[in-house]
Amino acid sequence: MNAPLPNEVLPRYERRPVPPAMLDALRDRFGERCSTAPALCEQHGRDESPYPVTPPDAVVFCERTDEVAFVVAQARAHGVPVIPFGIGSSLEGHLLAVQGGVSVDLSRMTRILRVNAEDLTVTVEAGVTREQLNREIRDTGLFFPIDPGANATIGGMAATRASGTNAVRYGTMRENVLALTVVTAAGEVIRTGSRAKKSSAGYDLTRLFVGSEGTLGVMTEITLKLYPLPEAVSAAICHFPGVQQAVAATIQVIQMGVPIARCELLDANAVRAVNAQSRLGLRETPMLLMEFHGSPASVQEQAETVQAIAAEFGGEGFEWASTPEERTRLWTARHKAYFAGMQMNPGCRSVTTDTCVPISRLAEIIDASVADADASGLPYYIVGHVGDGNFHLAYLVAEGDAAERATAERLSMQMVQRAIALEGTCTGEHGIGLHKMGFLVDEAGSGAIDAMRAIKRALDPGNIMNPGKIFAL
Amino acid sequence: MNAPLPNEVLPRYERRPVPPAMLDALRDRFGERCSTAPALCEQHGRDESPYPVTPPDAVVFCERTDEVAFVVAQARAHGVPVIPFGIGSSLEGHLLAVQGGVSVDLSRMTRILRVNAEDLTVTVEAGVTREQLNREIRDTGLFFPIDPGANATIGGMAATRASGTNAVRYGTMRENVLALTVVTAAGEVIRTGSRAKKSSAGYDLTRLFVGSEGTLGVMTEITLKLYPLPEAVSAAICHFPGVQQAVAATIQVIQMGVPIARCELLDANAVRAVNAQSRLGLRETPMLLMEFHGSPASVQEQAETVQAIAAEFGGEGFEWASTPEERTRLWTARHKAYFAGMQMNPGCRSVTTDTCVPISRLAEIIDASVADADASGLPYYIVGHVGDGNFHLAYLVAEGDAAERATAERLSMQMVQRAIALEGTCTGEHGIGLHKMGFLVDEAGSGAIDAMRAIKRALDPGNIMNPGKIFAL
Repeated sequence: MNAPLPNEVLPRYERRPVPPAMLDALRDRFGERCSTAPALCEQHGRDESPYPVTPPDAVVFCERTDEVAFVVAQARAHGVPVIPFGIGSSLEGHLLAVQGGVSVDLSRMTRILRVNAEDLTVTVEAGVTREQLNREIRDTGLFFPIDPGANATIGGMAATRASGTNAVRYGTMRENVLALTVVTAAGEVIRTGSRAKKSSAGYDLTRLFVGSEGTLGVMTEITLKLYPLPEAVSAAICHFPGVQQAVAATIQVIQMGVPIARCELLDANAVRAVNAQSRLGLRETPMLLMEFHGSPASVQEQAETVQAIAAEFGGEGFEWASTPEERTRLWTARHKAYFAGMQMNPGCRSVTTDTCVPISRLAEIIDASVADADASGLPYYIVGHVGDGNFHLAYLVAEGDAAERATAERLSMQMVQRAIALEGTCTGEHGIGLHKMGFLVDEAGSGAIDAMRAIKRALDPGNIMNPGKIFAL
Repeated sequence: MNAPLPNEVLPRYERRPVPPAMLDALRDRFGERCSTAPALCEQHGRDESPYPVTPPDAVVFCERTDEVAFVVAQARAHGVPVIPFGIGSSLEGHLLAVQGGVSVDLSRMTRILRVNAEDLTVTVEAGVTREQLNREIRDTGLFFPIDPGANATIGGMAATRASGTNAVRYGTMRENVLALTVVTAAGEVIRTGSRAKKSSAGYDLTRLFVGSEGTLGVMTEITLKLYPLPEAVSAAICHFPGVQQAVAATIQVIQMGVPIARCELLDANAVRAVNAQSRLGLRETPMLLMEFHGSPASVQEQAETVQAIAAEFGGEGFEWASTPEERTRLWTARHKAYFAGMQMNPGCRSVTTDTCVPISRLAEIIDASVADADASGLPYYIVGHVGDGNFHLAYLVAEGDAAERATAERLSMQMVQRAIALEGTCTGEHGIGLHKMGFLVDEAGSGAIDAMRAIKRALDPGNIMNPGKIFAL
């Protein structure tokens, strides 16, 4: 192993292109659903990371698990990389075909296979998006709470162990995936877990595949927990004199055990961006955007407690979003903050951090990071799932400006080193991909990474499943 | 691989005894803390499973992580099995030294290493018991909710992915372990996870070790989530005309999303047993024992909702345990149900089932299992974490009576087959050990077990970590 590269440099790997015999086999089976068109390959060789486009050799649109198994079996026979693809919203270079190979596009696997409303479970194909899922189950009175900013696919969310604004109450994909259908690197189909709420039956393969970023197999069907739509929902915004005060209030809310459903920080820059994009007319100061779920009495009680805490830290009043339309407008704006931030600085790329620390250390790391960002002169904004101790500071760098990119990467590295020193993690929900491989070494240590490598080699001896991601082999 | 053995037969393995050179090295390092005394070895070669005592060759009492690493390094060098031992309360033969070797007794590793009350986390050594933990953190206003019947060690609970009566609200060890210190099969010390509440940093090694039953490494330090002691707690019992009605009421409570903290079923036999042992004077009919946590208003609201549901299913009144002493008395009786059941039938052994199914299928499997048990003529009782879809039917068989044992194992197997057909699991919280190895094959399928085997071989190439458990290699 070599020393980790600077994060702005794409690691170099040997290419393992798709040989003509394999391409023939794929075309035989998939017809026009197998393509080598450059534009399509380029579209599948990029994500929201700041790396250059790195296209696969071919794209196959799979519609069933057995089709995925066929592609993987071919790839295995020919020693060719397989990169599962949802909608391309990942942030860390997960989808880049650094060794060439085939992008397995799952975006046509969009069936809701089984809703078991009485058990609060649903089984979906990997290409179902979170918005589609909630739309299609609306009549059941249930919902699926995990909501990364993008309208990601459930497969992609499982692969990166995603979370979002509701995680403070409902957990992440780690807690909400019950069972999987997986195509292994051998091209075989296995099932992990069951629809039982808990189990002690052998190794927890479900949670091993969740967060494995496509490096151990392709998840094609996913069984999820659902939750009853809360009887009452209430959203509120509260402005604070500074980021510090908003964070201090959050910490106290969590430490008191208030079962708050969402607790999001936007700094003044983020508020400015969402105002500009969504015409919300919010006061452009740091704010918390919160939501409470429960019975009417419980929602009222939670809101009163939080209001009292916010007041202690200089939070000014509460503005309530009482109608569902107003709530939707606020949360849609929050989910679009990433793109709103980008649009404030046309032609920029975003270098986005994702540290997560124990809640008592959150104020410390945000303070230091804000000071560094201010000193750098780079435009930036902060949004954060602060109830979980997780926040994103996005540095906006001019596309192609190597000096700005290097500054942003240096600041990002400083923040990660701080997070690790504070017993946190370099990534709360985005994953490692290519961009955080060096950070993972610092965080997990070589012994733990060796264990990960051993598992990877055992389950994917040919190193065909999304090779070159998470760690160097 | 051969066909699975009947569950009453202990699998046969080659013995791999501790050679004299290794014994000398252990004695040099540990002095009197290394013992080959037959009585001590026998005590470490049994658990609460119905198998005969199968002692290790030696027992080493470790007091620190580096001591565990020393024993494992020795074992690795000599190809000798290592069996981690807490307090011996497991139910499935986990602790039996089927190939000989060294029992690593962790019961002296009882330090609470760090309480981070402001982050709701604690780090403990593996030998801390759940009761010790809650006693020592009482002043913080926090508690650790996971409570298997026995006063098990946190290490043993993590190793079997244990849960208990609070899991319906607070989850299991799967959801409540944040980070681990593990001695690997190579005798190296690694850390997994961090104190951050969520993370997407690489493979989820923490959850791979949780539930791995000592077969992948020895967990020596465990970081857990804690919870604020609820402002208000209220416990109630409610009697039902039959088990069916109690289960039907439970299903409705769960489907309505009531955040009930505990929801336990006792059948009339179980009530009779706890009455006899704890002089509770409970009416000897099927009953639910429930607990509600929250603010005073929320507890009241939950209790009213549940009371209305229970009434629909013939539940008669609610008897409230209003004082902490009364509550403790009830829950202590519940936790002792296993021993109370055994004492009703002196000289018996228990064959205990642990199936867990999606909540909508719970009534079906309990009905069928009760009919089978009644028809068999064997004494039995049922206790169940029915809010999770998990219940235990314990058949009481006369010690040494092969015919009764065979009957109990046949009924157990029928129940597991039913649970699997209903999309459930053979074990909600006890683990596989030796006793459920055949069931795991039926449940997970050979493809998933092959993946588990590959991981085992990768992380423990010498097969020294608690060999012969979970699956045949």
